Amino acid sequence: MLPIVEGLLAGDRRSLARAISIVDDDEPESRQIIREIFGRTGKARTVGFTGPGGAGKSSLLGSLIPHCQSMGYKVAVLAVDPTSPITGGAILGDRVRMQSNLDDQRVFMRSMASRGAVGGVSKSLRNAIRILDAAGYSLILVESVGAGQLEVEIASVVDITIVLFTPHTGDNVQAVKAGLTEIGDMYVVNKSDLDGATKLYSTLSDFIGGTERKPAVLKTSVKTGRGVKELAQAIDKTLKEKGINYKARERKMLEDELRDMVLSIVERKISGMLIQDKRYSEFVDKLVKKEIDPYFAAEALASGLFK
Amino acid sequence: MLPIVEGLLAGDRRSLARAISIVDDDEPESRQIIREIFGRTGKARTVGFTGPGGAGKSSLLGSLIPHCQSMGYKVAVLAVDPTSPITGGAILGDRVRMQSNLDDQRVFMRSMASRGAVGGVSKSLRNAIRILDAAGYSLILVESVGAGQLEVEIASVVDITIVLFTPHTGDNVQAVKAGLTEIGDMYVVNKSDLDGATKLYSTLSDFIGGTERKPAVLKTSVKTGRGVKELAQAIDKTLKEKGINYKARERKMLEDELRDMVLSIVERKISGMLIQDKRYSEFVDKLVKKEIDPYFAAEALASGLFK
Repeated sequence: MLPIVEGLLAGDRRSLARAISIVDDDEPESRQIIREIFGRTGKARTVGFTGPGGAGKSSLLGSLIPHCQSMGYKVAVLAVDPTSPITGGAILGDRVRMQSNLDDQRVFMRSMASRGAVGGVSKSLRNAIRILDAAGYSLILVESVGAGQLEVEIASVVDITIVLFTPHTGDNVQAVKAGLTEIGDMYVVNKSDLDGATKLYSTLSDFIGGTERKPAVLKTSVKTGRGVKELAQAIDKTLKEKGINYKARERKMLEDELRDMVLSIVERKISGMLIQDKRYSEFVDKLVKKEIDPYFAAEALASGLFK
Repeated sequence: MLPIVEGLLAGDRRSLARAISIVDDDEPESRQIIREIFGRTGKARTVGFTGPGGAGKSSLLGSLIPHCQSMGYKVAVLAVDPTSPITGGAILGDRVRMQSNLDDQRVFMRSMASRGAVGGVSKSLRNAIRILDAAGYSLILVESVGAGQLEVEIASVVDITIVLFTPHTGDNVQAVKAGLTEIGDMYVVNKSDLDGATKLYSTLSDFIGGTERKPAVLKTSVKTGRGVKELAQAIDKTLKEKGINYKARERKMLEDELRDMVLSIVERKISGMLIQDKRYSEFVDKLVKKEIDPYFAAEALASGLFK
């Protein structure tokens, strides 16, 4: 067993952090780490938190976590930041605020980069969740800034997804809800002490009440503390209710993961084969001269790759 | 020749709009449309506009376009909106403001969806640009809401990229610049009439002046009109200066496009093969039982797909 795996299983936080970095960066050791811990996974429950920037996700998590802990959960947080695909550096990242709210010894908190390629986030997240799971964390909260594809990808990896709105983001509700009301298992109007919260709450409730799944809509305020305990209870209840389906869900998740992994192996292989294939540059020459069109070239080239 | 292609070549705007919808939705006719127009492409120049939401991209384009027209360009605008990958509906979209500024008969303006998969946007955009190019538009402005992967994808498809900031988004500069200062050929402080514009301008100039490429930093205000004509002139100048490199750049773009298209054909093929492959569900069974790990399963399955 790798020393880092021994470390994380024994509760060493530095080993844990390092192991997550390794899978997040897709370093060569990832494979062995996952292989060694895979048999110890499957116990943790995962909750995604998403919503527009400024919805107060970090602060809400800071208040929510102690409630989850007093219910017996060992909590970890993974914050997924959109990054520049060029530098790999995080574009957003005001994690300090949340971290300083928390008792460092009980909560494990880690920022992850959302790497360029679609599918990159799912892969990093799945493996980071496995590592935390093996290390004994029983509730893993995944926080992300909400917009589009990234959210859907995260929702596909966690057990339940909670979508946050605030009165500040009220103008966007009409627009955003088209995307976000499809992934939420629960909706939260955060900063409910602010003007406009009641209106937002009823708009959201009306809209979501009209959907087939009818997920719950809650109100929270970190400032006054109202609703935060109720949110923790609702999460606990939903996780337990959903419990019965976890096996089927796990199978579906493993099926998707396996397909993604196979496709990325194939993609690497094909990219390598193309570089070697002299028809590739011949086709590009012909495209430049407009003697053929891109569809023709792609189909001809692809059909040559499989016998 | 397809009637729709005849129509768009003859200047019929409805045919043009319909043809762009067809390639954006990747309908079966796309192939034939592109094949028929491909020989008539290669003359248009393309400029990407990106930046944080609220940077005033739409309003700035509304003011900029008449200046470009008086320089002799026939202008079209493609606005790329992040969409919900589930519904396909646009998440953002306040296009009306810009459209109402413009003389409908001279400018062609179209919103495009940014489809789920990475590469989906590039493909739609490349083909929409080709259609506009064949239809005689000589300057195609591509507008998008800036964050992450989407921007980089768009930048890879257009000739030059302009990144917009405003004093409102000033707080984010420090964070955003890591990603956005790598794709810009030009930077604009928009809403330069607002407090904080001068400070933002000098912060940006300092940062960008320290980079190797040293792209220009400009100030514009749609409200006062200051700097807008100068921006149009700077774009024209940059496009003409860059002219000498277009052939090499076109080759590189066609090379990338061909690789993307081959990979997407291969991906479809492999996904289909996996569903048929009974080892796929056997491996998933073993994963559920934790008898094997995902890396092992993926490699075994992938190696079976190529002889």
